[in-house]
Amino acid sequence: MKRRFEVLALFTMLVSALAAQTWIWYPGDYEIWLGNQMNNRRTERGTFYPPFWKMDSHYVCVQFSKSVSLQKSENISIAVEGKYNISLDGKLMFGMPHQMTIPAGNHKLVFKVWNQSTPPTIFIKGKTVYTDSSWKVTYEDKEWIDSSGKTSDTSTTVYMDAGCWNFDNADNHPSQYALPRKPRQAISKTVVKGGILYDFGCETFGYVTLKGLHGDGPVDLYYGESSEEAQDTLHCETLDKLYISDGKVTDLSCNTSFPIADNDYTLGDSKAFRYVYITGGDKVGMDSASMQYEYMPEEYRGAFKCNDEELNRIWDVSAYTLHLATREFFIDGIKRDRWVWSGDAIQSYLMNYYLFFDSSCVKRSVWMLRGKDPVTSHTNTILDYTFYWFLSVYDYYLYSGDNHFVSQIYPRMQTMMDFVLGRTDSNGMVEGLPGDWVFVDWADGYMDKKGELSFEQLLLCKSLETMAVCADVTHNETDHLKYEKLASSLRSKLVPFFWNEQKQALVHNRINGHQSGAVTRYANIFAILFNYLNKDKQQVIEHSVLLNDSIMKITTPYMRFYELASLCAMGRQTEVMKEMKDYWGGMLKEGATSFWEKYNPDEKGAQHLAMYGRPYGKSLCHAWGASPIYLLGKYYLGVSPVKPGYEEFSIKPCLGGLKWIDGKVPTPHGDIHVYMNKKEIRVKADSGTGYLYLDSKHVPRCADTTVEALGARKYRVLIKAGEEMAVKYDAMP
Amino acid sequence: MKRRFEVLALFTMLVSALAAQTWIWYPGDYEIWLGNQMNNRRTERGTFYPPFWKMDSHYVCVQFSKSVSLQKSENISIAVEGKYNISLDGKLMFGMPHQMTIPAGNHKLVFKVWNQSTPPTIFIKGKTVYTDSSWKVTYEDKEWIDSSGKTSDTSTTVYMDAGCWNFDNADNHPSQYALPRKPRQAISKTVVKGGILYDFGCETFGYVTLKGLHGDGPVDLYYGESSEEAQDTLHCETLDKLYISDGKVTDLSCNTSFPIADNDYTLGDSKAFRYVYITGGDKVGMDSASMQYEYMPEEYRGAFKCNDEELNRIWDVSAYTLHLATREFFIDGIKRDRWVWSGDAIQSYLMNYYLFFDSSCVKRSVWMLRGKDPVTSHTNTILDYTFYWFLSVYDYYLYSGDNHFVSQIYPRMQTMMDFVLGRTDSNGMVEGLPGDWVFVDWADGYMDKKGELSFEQLLLCKSLETMAVCADVTHNETDHLKYEKLASSLRSKLVPFFWNEQKQALVHNRINGHQSGAVTRYANIFAILFNYLNKDKQQVIEHSVLLNDSIMKITTPYMRFYELASLCAMGRQTEVMKEMKDYWGGMLKEGATSFWEKYNPDEKGAQHLAMYGRPYGKSLCHAWGASPIYLLGKYYLGVSPVKPGYEEFSIKPCLGGLKWIDGKVPTPHGDIHVYMNKKEIRVKADSGTGYLYLDSKHVPRCADTTVEALGARKYRVLIKAGEEMAVKYDAMP
Repeated sequence: MKRRFEVLALFTMLVSALAAQTWIWYPGDYEIWLGNQMNNRRTERGTFYPPFWKMDSHYVCVQFSKSVSLQKSENISIAVEGKYNISLDGKLMFGMPHQMTIPAGNHKLVFKVWNQSTPPTIFIKGKTVYTDSSWKVTYEDKEWIDSSGKTSDTSTTVYMDAGCWNFDNADNHPSQYALPRKPRQAISKTVVKGGILYDFGCETFGYVTLKGLHGDGPVDLYYGESSEEAQDTLHCETLDKLYISDGKVTDLSCNTSFPIADNDYTLGDSKAFRYVYITGGDKVGMDSASMQYEYMPEEYRGAFKCNDEELNRIWDVSAYTLHLATREFFIDGIKRDRWVWSGDAIQSYLMNYYLFFDSSCVKRSVWMLRGKDPVTSHTNTILDYTFYWFLSVYDYYLYSGDNHFVSQIYPRMQTMMDFVLGRTDSNGMVEGLPGDWVFVDWADGYMDKKGELSFEQLLLCKSLETMAVCADVTHNETDHLKYEKLASSLRSKLVPFFWNEQKQALVHNRINGHQSGAVTRYANIFAILFNYLNKDKQQVIEHSVLLNDSIMKITTPYMRFYELASLCAMGRQTEVMKEMKDYWGGMLKEGATSFWEKYNPDEKGAQHLAMYGRPYGKSLCHAWGASPIYLLGKYYLGVSPVKPGYEEFSIKPCLGGLKWIDGKVPTPHGDIHVYMNKKEIRVKADSGTGYLYLDSKHVPRCADTTVEALGARKYRVLIKAGEEMAVKYDAMP
Repeated sequence: MKRRFEVLALFTMLVSALAAQTWIWYPGDYEIWLGNQMNNRRTERGTFYPPFWKMDSHYVCVQFSKSVSLQKSENISIAVEGKYNISLDGKLMFGMPHQMTIPAGNHKLVFKVWNQSTPPTIFIKGKTVYTDSSWKVTYEDKEWIDSSGKTSDTSTTVYMDAGCWNFDNADNHPSQYALPRKPRQAISKTVVKGGILYDFGCETFGYVTLKGLHGDGPVDLYYGESSEEAQDTLHCETLDKLYISDGKVTDLSCNTSFPIADNDYTLGDSKAFRYVYITGGDKVGMDSASMQYEYMPEEYRGAFKCNDEELNRIWDVSAYTLHLATREFFIDGIKRDRWVWSGDAIQSYLMNYYLFFDSSCVKRSVWMLRGKDPVTSHTNTILDYTFYWFLSVYDYYLYSGDNHFVSQIYPRMQTMMDFVLGRTDSNGMVEGLPGDWVFVDWADGYMDKKGELSFEQLLLCKSLETMAVCADVTHNETDHLKYEKLASSLRSKLVPFFWNEQKQALVHNRINGHQSGAVTRYANIFAILFNYLNKDKQQVIEHSVLLNDSIMKITTPYMRFYELASLCAMGRQTEVMKEMKDYWGGMLKEGATSFWEKYNPDEKGAQHLAMYGRPYGKSLCHAWGASPIYLLGKYYLGVSPVKPGYEEFSIKPCLGGLKWIDGKVPTPHGDIHVYMNKKEIRVKADSGTGYLYLDSKHVPRCADTTVEALGARKYRVLIKAGEEMAVKYDAMP
């Protein structure tokens, strides 16, 4: 235990060192503001294309406060984004000072900052007094001064802990945040019909640089995730139109001119592409095009290798796909929407827990998706996406153990759930009401969206359970009981309402109190994942639905994520391995350098590029395409948290037909390493405690500890932090 | 009738001409944004001083749409504040065009505009297609495109009519709005203790200009509404600190430097003052100081003259006081808060109906005070101010007849009333809950704020009645019935709960179900104004409270407004005239050039300047000081609307002890002129119909129409639009 304690102590020190003197703001406000910057970068053929839901913004005036107790007087330096004042013990300082001295003793320091354009933020640096998340913030202090000059009641003001990220020095203004860039060169340059086609070798993202630009006339850039798209100037999804004259470039999409520096010009807007096709007027010249690759710096903490090179390539391309779609937020895809979508994001979060474990990006995305009160529509307008939002808080809590975040976001969970519960029917169930988008999945066949969909009720039920868990985390016993009751009431209705004896499955929906005859995969998949059916029914639907080819197939990696996860949860890793190789391997065989929004193996050639009635409407780099990261980490390396933040974990490694697998899974306090072949399993966890579970023909042997038999050739071994365990065993056939 | 029809038709033409091609926005959004600019101009001795309640802001992304039907194709020019796109019949145009051609036929034109810093606004100018309030706006269009490219359900999107004001050309950007200025010179310049004291002759507002500024060193400006304040450099409420060097001025309150143009420098922030005391370092020189007077252009449509010069002066100084406090919004006072306060504003609105009839400023202030949902506290945090907000909508509707505004603001009235009703006790009454400021009035004696205050219940009751009226205006029958029921239920409890037989008055409050013994004027005044007591009780409280010197006196013009109005409503114009001359005449005798926040005739000299525990805390130009405008217009000229917008009016002129009065009252469609002496009354109304009511010893005579006898020497004469009526009568003694 000693070693583990040291690791944690070290971690705690690191955290407090990192937390010191950072820019702070009202929690969620910077995230919502930055999210607007992100979501408003979408363009469609040169035209600005904002979201169709309510976009919230920051509180324009925020009070920051801190009580300090000083042994001796202290100088602090002050940086603020906004117009501000400072009061010390209720007395206002003159003007907007950049420095001040706080005398020894106990003091109350209060800043009020107003900023319409960007979130009010402050940065204080002193020896012991500095801004961090321990500062309190509020958007209304309700402090008034009566006619005699007395300051009056403030008892109901709601103070929150300040929000922060990693803006740890005074010059690092949060409102000026930009992702880093690095240059990338094209791998080929081809003259095509009077224009030049540049190929950057793989899917990429950033800003094209035109080198040696000179002359007078138009220059057009057509971007393509495929070479077909780049060359189809009438139908490609994104483009730029420039006009060059007098040493200046005019960007025609915004009618703004920029000087050409050293004959080079870098486009102002980022794009996703592999190919760029560039055409120009007769009098315009250009030497070459390159690009500035823009990326979120991420450490690939998760890893996976095995004896199958195709699978290794699937993991690598999945990781690259997720990385491209991990930007200021987890976005859906990099070419088209570039928006934060809740249903897409929850999968990115789960993949992220097996690759980057970037908690900040999860929290930013959760804040941003929630926005502000009042709630006027479902998340992204989609019924199911509201529920995924709740579930994503549960997942984040489970993987990170971050109680503090749960308590910060909980008030917005309450108001979001109030919105949901205000729209339930007399059965306490949700139906798509006017204005709700009931999405479920993009399906190639017809899907009924009317009435009570079993799928939606399962998600609602899990959302209510999430509310109960989070109420408990925030010590809100009243809410805890309320949501437990609502969840169990709904859960008890699921089988009576949706189970069909004849079909031996949960039916798709119920209209006016009557089951429809249709069976789809969705609810049956989630019933397994959420463990909402008894063992018998679970095994029945495995055959009546999951492995039944007559039930409408799933053609999006989005829903394949859950489908394959549910099969893995049923122990069908070998079949899922084959599916993965067929499906993701299929995309690789089509030349994919990142994974797609949708893939139907029955389609051919340019059919793969079309979607939404547009020839290149499909995104060829879509975060939800990267699910092998999650599947391989959770169901093959077999690592998952049992208690929040991996305080306890389980490792259930599974070869799934492979000869060996070797990898690691990140946790909040280190990594968990897993190696497995048919004879040996080696694991090491940097922190936490957990069990390695394994099946073996004979009793496994471990030199360092005892192996516990669980019956039916199942065994487990206790794993302690920091100790590598090697277990000899005999794989089941 | 014909003439009246012509006037209205002309007016309608004028309105539509004015409405053509104006900048538009989401209703309330510009007002809230501009309100933030206004409320954040408060400074306290060089320090920024924002409000202590939640400040809302605009929707950052707004859709503007219009269906048009064109005989032939039309070119339109486009100006936008924000990043935008345009779609015609669902098809996006490239980029952000400044011009476009709409083909002949039926089309749907949609703009989406994003702007974080200032409200999204657009301006379209074409022959028949142009922006005005008939455009529809929404902050979420809920339009999504399914996988086949079909645009889906938008049925629940809430579209509002666009908001606008008077920004009627493309270059007149709403976000750049500033009040006009004109130069004013000081009337005297005196050397005092090494500094120079400038006197501008009367209370004024604007930006000091320093002429011939040169040298190096500090220059400090100390402002005073009194000469005492300006010279008291340690205690004056507002000041500026500059530093001059290298031909630049550094404003030390914001650490920003500006070049000195032609040796002149005009301060960046406006101030209220009559006196400025300027000191400078030895090496700094300056020729003189003048100022840029800043003002809202207003036409003095109301007028009042009489035989009493002191009263004429009271009216003039009242008008100037109201004008100074009528800026982008109706603010409380010009020196200190410079905030929009609901209780102050409702009085400004009422005065405004008798002086400027500036409806735009009323609407802006009402939007701004309401802000956005969710409601997290009372208006300005004050319980009573929430109710005044409701009442101000009622007043505005009554005076203007503006149904459209009522329907625009009604959704926010609903959510505000939801907030109020969510905080009532088991009697359906309001008490001050933690976080609520129960204001009532600044009183020199002790005022109990605990429990159910009768005053607050009366205001709540009137607010519920307002809800019922406005629900009716918006054709919301369900709400109409709901609020009528709530209002009548509460009204029926007022006497049983608060009437005290022994005191013959409404008591001040009720704690835990028991009447307190205290009687104050507040509830008794409003019971008369709202006509909530029967005739007997009204006459009783006139003596038991209103004219009873043992009941705590009112020392603010704020509550005197209602006190004197209630006395006038009881027919005591002669007594009120004396009070007006004593009270406002008293301020004039103290040298007032504008009327004050508070006036206690018992105080002497510099005592008059102190408030809030500060020697110059009192505002000497406070809007609520201008109430004679209202009292003289409504109760002496006697003009008030009977049906909304003066469609029907009543004129009950009253000399109140004067020999003659002569004036006019503005209405939405012209003016109503009234002249009265003891023998003759002449009236003329430009539009509408109404009665002149008068008392006369003998039957009055009118050459043009019949005089109707109402009994008890009361008479009335029908007044038609555009016809001057002269009535000969004999004034009662």
